[in-house]
Amino acid sequence: MQTDAVLAHIEATLDDARERWFEFLRIPSVSAQPAHAADCGRAAAWVRDQLAAMGFDAALHDTPGHPVVLGRHPGPGGNAPHLLFYGHYDVQPAEPLELWTHPPFDPALSDGPHGPRVVARGAVDDKGQVMMWLEALRAWHAVHGTLPVRVTALIEGEEEVGSPNLDRFLAEHADALRGDVTVISDTGMWDIDTPALTTRLRGLAYMQVVVRAAKRDLHSGIFGGSALNPINLLTRILGELHDADGRVQLPGFYDGVREVPQSLQGDWAALGFDEAEFLGGIGLSVPSGERGRTGLERLWARPTADVNGIWGGYAGPGAKTVIAAEAGAKVSFRLVPGQDPAAVVRSFHDFVQARLPADARAEITGDASPGVEVPADSRFVQAAQEALAEEYGRPAVLIGSGGSIPVVGSMRRLLGMDSVLMGFGLDDDQVHSPNEKFEWRCFHKGLRSHARLLGKLAG
Amino acid sequence: MQTDAVLAHIEATLDDARERWFEFLRIPSVSAQPAHAADCGRAAAWVRDQLAAMGFDAALHDTPGHPVVLGRHPGPGGNAPHLLFYGHYDVQPAEPLELWTHPPFDPALSDGPHGPRVVARGAVDDKGQVMMWLEALRAWHAVHGTLPVRVTALIEGEEEVGSPNLDRFLAEHADALRGDVTVISDTGMWDIDTPALTTRLRGLAYMQVVVRAAKRDLHSGIFGGSALNPINLLTRILGELHDADGRVQLPGFYDGVREVPQSLQGDWAALGFDEAEFLGGIGLSVPSGERGRTGLERLWARPTADVNGIWGGYAGPGAKTVIAAEAGAKVSFRLVPGQDPAAVVRSFHDFVQARLPADARAEITGDASPGVEVPADSRFVQAAQEALAEEYGRPAVLIGSGGSIPVVGSMRRLLGMDSVLMGFGLDDDQVHSPNEKFEWRCFHKGLRSHARLLGKLAG
Repeated sequence: MQTDAVLAHIEATLDDARERWFEFLRIPSVSAQPAHAADCGRAAAWVRDQLAAMGFDAALHDTPGHPVVLGRHPGPGGNAPHLLFYGHYDVQPAEPLELWTHPPFDPALSDGPHGPRVVARGAVDDKGQVMMWLEALRAWHAVHGTLPVRVTALIEGEEEVGSPNLDRFLAEHADALRGDVTVISDTGMWDIDTPALTTRLRGLAYMQVVVRAAKRDLHSGIFGGSALNPINLLTRILGELHDADGRVQLPGFYDGVREVPQSLQGDWAALGFDEAEFLGGIGLSVPSGERGRTGLERLWARPTADVNGIWGGYAGPGAKTVIAAEAGAKVSFRLVPGQDPAAVVRSFHDFVQARLPADARAEITGDASPGVEVPADSRFVQAAQEALAEEYGRPAVLIGSGGSIPVVGSMRRLLGMDSVLMGFGLDDDQVHSPNEKFEWRCFHKGLRSHARLLGKLAG
Repeated sequence: MQTDAVLAHIEATLDDARERWFEFLRIPSVSAQPAHAADCGRAAAWVRDQLAAMGFDAALHDTPGHPVVLGRHPGPGGNAPHLLFYGHYDVQPAEPLELWTHPPFDPALSDGPHGPRVVARGAVDDKGQVMMWLEALRAWHAVHGTLPVRVTALIEGEEEVGSPNLDRFLAEHADALRGDVTVISDTGMWDIDTPALTTRLRGLAYMQVVVRAAKRDLHSGIFGGSALNPINLLTRILGELHDADGRVQLPGFYDGVREVPQSLQGDWAALGFDEAEFLGGIGLSVPSGERGRTGLERLWARPTADVNGIWGGYAGPGAKTVIAAEAGAKVSFRLVPGQDPAAVVRSFHDFVQARLPADARAEITGDASPGVEVPADSRFVQAAQEALAEEYGRPAVLIGSGGSIPVVGSMRRLLGMDSVLMGFGLDDDQVHSPNEKFEWRCFHKGLRSHARLLGKLAG
């Protein structure tokens, strides 16, 4: 009953909600670009004001980078659950601007195959997804004068640059932040008609290795056949990262990796993932990676090793017969729950060191965050499943994600909290690319789903 | 008798010779830099005028690049041998200028451990070495009114940019150029007291390979574990270039490679090459390359494979989780006499293609020139040995070179001519680097050696 009135209010005030969303999108809060530092501050203040308007005790907290917005609302009191909503107000750079069909910070509705959509930088990542739960909270507050649960809202401004100051903030404000569960909308649906909760995220070990030998660049005619070549060496090392079956060869790499339970395997099979279509979209036809695994297993439940960049010697036009003094690479490992990130980092060190001949030295840097698994049987996940099923008229599916959301691991590690990952993005939303968009239908039903979830958890 | 008078003339006019050499060095004939195109033309005209002054029929020949100087002198007539002198008037860029202790195009004598030296761009490569034989010819002409042999002089202006127009020039002027032997001064001595003739040069196959897979860069979280990674693939391919014994793994790579004859092995052993010292100078301690070979064998008589450059993906600061759409490398093979350069190029194609999975494509470009061996028992080499022994009071050693001088192969292939490689550079001459120098003693005795060689061959 309470929820029905909130949904009715949402429908009656949709235009206002859209206008607020557009206001937020017009602030070019690009965290990576110093020229937009003031815009990041403006975006933070704007969010704080939204929270204050619905009764939050809200404030900006300075960091060495962009400020964190923290708001607290007591809700109805009593033993109502305490939800920690997390999101980020910063966005990726919009460049290259010439590829946008519309100015990236001048949001507008345009027509697409699924009806109207909003094209703008941050439309979905993460301003649009944040606005869904902000508007759901606002509607509850407007209709009932308070919120049905206790809410803490944490909106940071450095997610797109790796959240360098967030863990420290979480640790320093642990008592104020700690609640029953974190709610995050920064993930996607299975497809536009099928809602999803993400229950697995891969972690990431991102390493840089630089191999050095002679003290200067050498002429390959004079020294070739006698002097160690760091590029030859680096390719030999990295070329051994996988065996012929696509398994990563770091010692102990698969320690702790768990098989996907039969029941979940069945759920994933029922999703009907078409890997040929998935790969066809990027011009490929044959899956790479570990043999003997299904497509979704490889993407969601198996760790990987990818060289993300490599450099050394001469890369210009024509020929230069140089033996370079050094060569380097960026190497990343997607991790799954059960793997120890620190052990993977150590193993990569060992893997490289074991392959260095005399005279070669390697400088290895990097760090790692773990893969995360969210318990699928918590009351919060169940409430989210019910909310989504009611809104969409079909069950929500439990999916994994091949990517990483480090804050989910931080919430677990620093606050002891699990997360509900309820997101409404689609695969073709062009996140981080020109013409980022968010389907109006996704926004609208996502907002309603958040309102329903709050009702389900009402204390 | 004839030669003694020439040597006496050389001694009496040394100051003039030095002044002419300096004049030549003052022309900044940098072939790679369009701003110096007119200077290249000036240098060519200057050389032509030198030839004309000693009775040559000399002219400039235009090419799509810088002109070739061609001069012909009939010598004494009769059955006198016909020598083709080859050299180049162009020089490498002088940059970085700030590392020069003296302006690179303002030659001056300065003191070094071996007495006076000339510091300038082109001091040794190749203006200084060209001036030795030009001055020897001039002295013969001045003393005897003609030359003791028939001489054709060919001085090009594009050696430092790969001689793109030379082969065509050789083919088109084959009848005019073809003589008994080519004489080239563009190599070095064993040490400042030990003259040398270079009888082996390695060839070079220089290849570029670019590997492509998906049609765009991918996010490694979303696609890692399913999509082919071109950098992983390229490192796997190039990492297999050598086996554990340092042998190159291209099929048929060693076809035609000949073992160094015992007698030559003995000569090389007698040189007392200290590989530890050679490597110590560049900060290395352990030889790389093929096991079971001596240091000079690996440098002079064994083929190699070196990756000279590699690129792909993200090489900036921090982390970018990209699976690049392509990755590339420059790969070169030093070749030895007996190897078929075209076969090596084909084998590299095959080597790469055999390692490409479905969905991967490789674009491979490049070309190759052969290793060259000069018959050590020709009358011309013997004459050069005698000339050097008389000048230095000790025998000349027969050495190899790990580098490549493609024109030597072209002379063989297009004109059917062998070359006498009599050069007077030292290892520390800083060729192609700031503060290039040529020892005055090397220049002086080199000039006298050339005068003696002409006397030995007098018809």
